[in-house]
Amino acid sequence: MMRPILISDPTLRDGSHAIHHRLTVEQISAYTRMAEEASIPIVEVGHGNGLGASSLQLGESLVSDKQMLEVCREHLKRTKLGIHVIPGFATIKKDLNNAIDIGVDVIRVASHCTEADVTQRHIEHCRTREREVYGVLMMSHMAPASILIAEAKKMQSYGAQGIIIMDSAGAYLPEEVKEKMKALVSSLDIPVGFHAHNNLGMAIANSVAAIEEGATILDATMKGFGAGAGNAQLEVLIAVLQLTGYETGIDLYRLLDASDVAEQNFITVPTISSSSIVSGMAGVFSGFAKPVERIAKQYNLDPKDIYFELGKRKVVAGQEDLILEVAVSLSQLR
Amino acid sequence: MMRPILISDPTLRDGSHAIHHRLTVEQISAYTRMAEEASIPIVEVGHGNGLGASSLQLGESLVSDKQMLEVCREHLKRTKLGIHVIPGFATIKKDLNNAIDIGVDVIRVASHCTEADVTQRHIEHCRTREREVYGVLMMSHMAPASILIAEAKKMQSYGAQGIIIMDSAGAYLPEEVKEKMKALVSSLDIPVGFHAHNNLGMAIANSVAAIEEGATILDATMKGFGAGAGNAQLEVLIAVLQLTGYETGIDLYRLLDASDVAEQNFITVPTISSSSIVSGMAGVFSGFAKPVERIAKQYNLDPKDIYFELGKRKVVAGQEDLILEVAVSLSQLR
Repeated sequence: MMRPILISDPTLRDGSHAIHHRLTVEQISAYTRMAEEASIPIVEVGHGNGLGASSLQLGESLVSDKQMLEVCREHLKRTKLGIHVIPGFATIKKDLNNAIDIGVDVIRVASHCTEADVTQRHIEHCRTREREVYGVLMMSHMAPASILIAEAKKMQSYGAQGIIIMDSAGAYLPEEVKEKMKALVSSLDIPVGFHAHNNLGMAIANSVAAIEEGATILDATMKGFGAGAGNAQLEVLIAVLQLTGYETGIDLYRLLDASDVAEQNFITVPTISSSSIVSGMAGVFSGFAKPVERIAKQYNLDPKDIYFELGKRKVVAGQEDLILEVAVSLSQLR
Repeated sequence: MMRPILISDPTLRDGSHAIHHRLTVEQISAYTRMAEEASIPIVEVGHGNGLGASSLQLGESLVSDKQMLEVCREHLKRTKLGIHVIPGFATIKKDLNNAIDIGVDVIRVASHCTEADVTQRHIEHCRTREREVYGVLMMSHMAPASILIAEAKKMQSYGAQGIIIMDSAGAYLPEEVKEKMKALVSSLDIPVGFHAHNNLGMAIANSVAAIEEGATILDATMKGFGAGAGNAQLEVLIAVLQLTGYETGIDLYRLLDASDVAEQNFITVPTISSSSIVSGMAGVFSGFAKPVERIAKQYNLDPKDIYFELGKRKVVAGQEDLILEVAVSLSQLR
């Protein structure tokens, strides 16, 4: 018997990082129509950092959340419409309620892997408004399984109907994915999912490792379109799942056709650059790439040294000011 | 203790498939110098199909074998100079002796996975002339472990000092790699190696699977530059080996710098196209891609159907005429 896996496709959300949130209405419409034809179960859309994140600091979306959701809602019938929500960027009163009013089906509420508390009100609100809601633990390589379990259980207690473990820095190798997934699956009462990045070339292998240990939800994007080295490549993942006896309901032929069209229209296929590799090894989020390169040049340092030092200091998104501090102290060491 | 792995880098050989064997003397020189600086143990050079394969049918090399080997010999001191040799393309008297006279260090003699017999005279000749020589089994996904062992043992008896198992069609998933490597390693008296392709996104995971089961030689190319979906990406592989406790002698920092330079100079980074995925699923060599696309268009067929039918018929390189036969029979079925 084929084991069922739920696929959620954040091509129009994680991918928007790769093009500075410049997706056009035409590209969004075209992709949602193809996703519908290929029977992709969930399409997640929006600014790379989720609902309400469009800003000068994080990059402004070309198309507003409202317009993007309305366009997608119009095209998606069987495919569910999903959003990524980070409390702090997305308010309940305005952003979340607007999205629910437009008719979003699936809401992912995300926090850093040790800060599930901040998701409580958003998750509870989604349940009150009777929406499908998942908890997401980002940068999960920074916490051991025991902490991930404790944080995931909080989300479960708030009403989350599943927990997604994100490898935001692309830092995992399959063994660690297996260990953490096994622990989470046996400790939680709700489904567990995995969201891969490809910094160490392991996005597909890590995704397969996750489901081998009982995860039942996987994120993957067309052509791997996503932040930094990209995500698990959706078409490749579906091919591998088909070969290994998992069922996703996705039509592989239509999906492959869609991938050809998407590549012609808007996808810059991610490749694994030297800075992606180092950021994966160091466990640093790819959002640090540009400022690290810039500051390394300014201080005449090797960006690799900065990455590894940032990794030692366990930086997370929002701490970009530490790059300068690291650069200064590395310069003084010379 | 770090376990030693021997890395052989066919960027200038398998990669030449990706640019129709159009590498220039300048590109070759620049790459060998960088390989030397990064302490890559072996650099394999030449036409994509190996020594003596430059021809109208397979594509003509811009730079002759002789000139390429002379240029490389000039630059490589600690890094060994390797070549790929397929009997039938490369003669002993002319091609192989010339290469040995120029000073090639490492010779790989390759055959289809069930035809090791054709390598006997070439392997024996390399031993007579006191060169390091390995046997290579191509398209190895087409034979079970028992056959690969029998064929490898033949090569061992001819004098091969190691056996390389090639995943020429990028068709393996890690479980099958493990099973075959385990069987080969326990049956042979000489080292076993693995040469990956990335059609199913598993090049890195398959390479790691191979060494987990005792393989001690891995092939990988800069940026994954190679036929079709490309090979295992060398820089990523070295990063992963470093993280998991294997020692290659390669300087990762210099390697990453070299990868940036190589990408600027001549490497088109391979991506996993829809036809690569289908050819990996079907177990068909990527060399079939262009004629399949052309004939599919001509007969108004979906190229995916042609790939899967070719896979069922177990085609190998040289049987491109079967594409037309398959297209005609698929057309009649409609």
